Amino acid sequence: NTPANGLNVPGMKYQRKKPYLHFVPVAFRGTIVTWIGEFVGTFLFLFFAFAGTEVANIAVARDSGPDARPNPASLLYISLCFGISLMVNVWAFFRITGGMFNPAVSLGLAMVGGITWKRMLVAWSAQIVGSIAAAALVSGLFPGSLGVNTTLSSGTSVVRGLFIEVFLTAELVFVIFMLAVEKNKATFIAPVGIGLALLIAELAGVAFTGGSLNPARSFGPAVVTPHFPGYHWIYWVGPFLGTLVAVLFYKIVRGLEYEVDNP
Amino acid sequence: NTPANGLNVPGMKYQRKKPYLHFVPVAFRGTIVTWIGEFVGTFLFLFFAFAGTEVANIAVARDSGPDARPNPASLLYISLCFGISLMVNVWAFFRITGGMFNPAVSLGLAMVGGITWKRMLVAWSAQIVGSIAAAALVSGLFPGSLGVNTTLSSGTSVVRGLFIEVFLTAELVFVIFMLAVEKNKATFIAPVGIGLALLIAELAGVAFTGGSLNPARSFGPAVVTPHFPGYHWIYWVGPFLGTLVAVLFYKIVRGLEYEVDNP
Amino acid sequence: NTPANGLNVPGMKYQRKKPYLHFVPVAFRGTIVTWIGEFVGTFLFLFFAFAGTEVANIAVARDSGPDARPNPASLLYISLCFGISLMVNVWAFFRITGGMFNPAVSLGLAMVGGITWKRMLVAWSAQIVGSIAAAALVSGLFPGSLGVNTTLSSGTSVVRGLFIEVFLTAELVFVIFMLAVEKNKATFIAPVGIGLALLIAELAGVAFTGGSLNPARSFGPAVVTPHFPGYHWIYWVGPFLGTLVAVLFYKIVRGLEYEVDNP
Amino acid sequence: NTPANGLNVPGMKYQRKKPYLHFVPVAFRGTIVTWIGEFVGTFLFLFFAFAGTEVANIAVARDSGPDARPNPASLLYISLCFGISLMVNVWAFFRITGGMFNPAVSLGLAMVGGITWKRMLVAWSAQIVGSIAAAALVSGLFPGSLGVNTTLSSGTSVVRGLFIEVFLTAELVFVIFMLAVEKNKATFIAPVGIGLALLIAELAGVAFTGGSLNPARSFGPAVVTPHFPGYHWIYWVGPFLGTLVAVLFYKIVRGLEYEVDNP
Ligand SMILES: [Ca+2]
Ligand SMILES: [Ca+2]
Ligand SMILES: [Ca+2]
Ligand SMILES: [Ca+2]
Repeated sequence: NTPANGLNVPGMKYQRKKPYLHFVPVAFRGTIVTWIGEFVGTFLFLFFAFAGTEVANIAVARDSGPDARPNPASLLYISLCFGISLMVNVWAFFRITGGMFNPAVSLGLAMVGGITWKRMLVAWSAQIVGSIAAAALVSGLFPGSLGVNTTLSSGTSVVRGLFIEVFLTAELVFVIFMLAVEKNKATFIAPVGIGLALLIAELAGVAFTGGSLNPARSFGPAVVTPHFPGYHWIYWVGPFLGTLVAVLFYKIVRGLEYEVDNP
Repeated sequence: NTPANGLNVPGMKYQRKKPYLHFVPVAFRGTIVTWIGEFVGTFLFLFFAFAGTEVANIAVARDSGPDARPNPASLLYISLCFGISLMVNVWAFFRITGGMFNPAVSLGLAMVGGITWKRMLVAWSAQIVGSIAAAALVSGLFPGSLGVNTTLSSGTSVVRGLFIEVFLTAELVFVIFMLAVEKNKATFIAPVGIGLALLIAELAGVAFTGGSLNPARSFGPAVVTPHFPGYHWIYWVGPFLGTLVAVLFYKIVRGLEYEVDNP
Repeated sequence: NTPANGLNVPGMKYQRKKPYLHFVPVAFRGTIVTWIGEFVGTFLFLFFAFAGTEVANIAVARDSGPDARPNPASLLYISLCFGISLMVNVWAFFRITGGMFNPAVSLGLAMVGGITWKRMLVAWSAQIVGSIAAAALVSGLFPGSLGVNTTLSSGTSVVRGLFIEVFLTAELVFVIFMLAVEKNKATFIAPVGIGLALLIAELAGVAFTGGSLNPARSFGPAVVTPHFPGYHWIYWVGPFLGTLVAVLFYKIVRGLEYEVDNP
Repeated sequence: NTPANGLNVPGMKYQRKKPYLHFVPVAFRGTIVTWIGEFVGTFLFLFFAFAGTEVANIAVARDSGPDARPNPASLLYISLCFGISLMVNVWAFFRITGGMFNPAVSLGLAMVGGITWKRMLVAWSAQIVGSIAAAALVSGLFPGSLGVNTTLSSGTSVVRGLFIEVFLTAELVFVIFMLAVEKNKATFIAPVGIGLALLIAELAGVAFTGGSLNPARSFGPAVVTPHFPGYHWIYWVGPFLGTLVAVLFYKIVRGLEYEVDNP
């Protein structure tokens, strides 16, 4: 199919099923694709999110000092970097690995049967390595020291921080269930909604906890800086508990058989 | 259908019709789903909207004092928190309850036959409780006192505030009629347009009336703070009148049989 | 079709073809719908755009005085109010009148055969009245004096202003041709692209000419304030010339038979 | 097909296949369309991006001097001008030439068989001329001197700048492969994702390298100002290397036969 003008990918249709590595057994290829896809996808998602956060961090308008108050323009900048980077990279990797990029998301998908538990562990490993790689590259590539760790603001206690992370993550994971796990007319464009869910979570959370929602996102910079505050565990327990809340609510909703029309 | 890689929800297709609670009669399950769905959905919508507003409220760039003038960055931040949170949560709950989250919207849907009057009352109850819950949780979870009440700016009289709320709500409800009640090719993505309608209403209204458009949104924080200004009634009468205006115009348009092509 | 839960519009399907005003001949109903639809749509589009601009105008961060330099936050705020308001209202009125809201757009559509010349004149009349109504209502409803006129910045000459308006409008009209006049898979979501085209035009133009692209948008506030600067004509000639440029390029492209695939 | 109301393009359906210039052989028409389409499209993309950058450059909030720190509001403004302008213009030209507007993108498409090498050279020529034209027009039309060159910030070395451009471009090109070269349900709306990919790249890169990702985008203003810093070559080598990285990863992913479901 070669029209006279413009864009065409003649070989693609016919080459589609010809793996270059077809000596690798099919099941194992799935594991390799998941690992590479989640590694590169998480790396790209966090590379752009971290790089943009670096920009906002050195911006002139930020108050410094112990009484520093958040600046809406900087916080909006950081939130957009995270939300839109997730949107773009989930969209690009949606049909490769589902675009999870987050151990809490992979846990949720495994709990509702979206992926196998084995695949979840493969994804976790790739996501953590991807985050470390992104933090390392941003640290080396951009001037200035790496300032993308998730930390609690001075007014936010550890317990509050934990529960903020729980609710933020619960929303993200539940939105992923309703938009991407459920098959409906809007599923193909779910990456847009998923990125927007992270956006509102960041707008709410960056000023208080750093807005993590993602153990890998917090672990990478912690390793690279290196800096592990005593409360680092809330960035693992919070998101995982949030996933549990999302799964619980999702099962309640499905159990009540909510189906309206499928628009 | 189990491909070698990535995302799959094997059990979902086959379990879809197996309600865990099937001892509950079907009609009553509808009422339960509506109540729970509207409660949790309104809660999530307002939780993120209120939390983001908290962030903007403590931001350094805001003028304080009697001559305080609005700050575009803060107002944009708040407007995005409301508009995008509505977009995301209406999208997630679209096929559960329609994602109404607003007594004025439910009133409008009942008036055009989109839901039954009984369902409207069920929704109203859930929305009000959901708003109180969101306000209470944001108050407890985030540092600082709750500052998300809708109030009139010093230059805005009660009558002006009432009519601003009328026009803002009329637009939101009419957009919901045209995008979601009318069935067309873009209906599946109506949540995006609905969120954007709230966004422009907030950009116009936050600086003057707090941009409520929603009796529940105003009632929740008023209960939790607690703070009921003498003009609190405009956040009920204004949105409900706005709904009447939207319904009236919608019926005129339908009466004139506007159908162009359905793209 | 009445599922147990949620959203349904039972009567709509069957009442669709029953005009309440069926004593009015069909052809004339078309003219009435166009006039009312373009009047209310233009009114709503400009009401929210003007109201948001009012907010930005009284914002604290704006420099005043003869050397006033534009403020990115304010300009972004105004641009979003125009771009997103157009997006939402074109989307809502897309299947009523096509959502033109702009005499330059209606001229372009008439020139490519999208609407009849008679319909264009009906639309022009409604758009101008709608703009006057929006300006009048925003002036009365919001505190402070109306500040939404399109004016040339001190550094922008009349000739430069004219040609800026030409290029800005040419882009908007050409985008409307390619996204909405051409029928393709994305046509149903063209309102989103149309709103974004206005957004980039405003981001480029507000600081220099007020970013009009629309004779009605400039005429309404000019009537209501009232204020007609000597160069007011550029907000008519500029957009109309921009339309001519867009039509010319569109015909060249079609003449060369560009069809790639229809995605 | 002439309904009573609104928008219709009666002649379009039937005229679609009647080229005005049908004395020109079909194959040659393809080259003409590509050249004109890429010229005008790149011109429009960069005209709005450059014009918006001009606005941000003269904005009051920018720090000046050797210790100048980036301002989030200005950087967000510039990033939106580039990202949304690309989104709108790729969308408008998607079915004309594919909307490449960037020699690095055209190189990538040629390398994966999306376009012929001859078409790539035609596109390169048009993109470079389009960028020069956009820079020239923005320079003449808007008050003030042209300030849209891509330059390295004081803290960014040439090597760092080169590699930043490599990674930014690799993401953009890979996203274009996954969203537009691969055919799937979301392909028709790929322009939105492509614009968003440029948005996150600009949010990350403007403060350090100017965020070019595009040899033509850097070359045009360099010619018009004129100003060719010693490191200008990184805006050619960086994006082209980024394309190589994207092509390499894309081939790995395809080789491993990643197909999940096509949503
Ligand atoms: Ca560094
Ligand atoms: Ca509190
Ligand atoms: Ca007034
Ligand atoms: Ca100049």
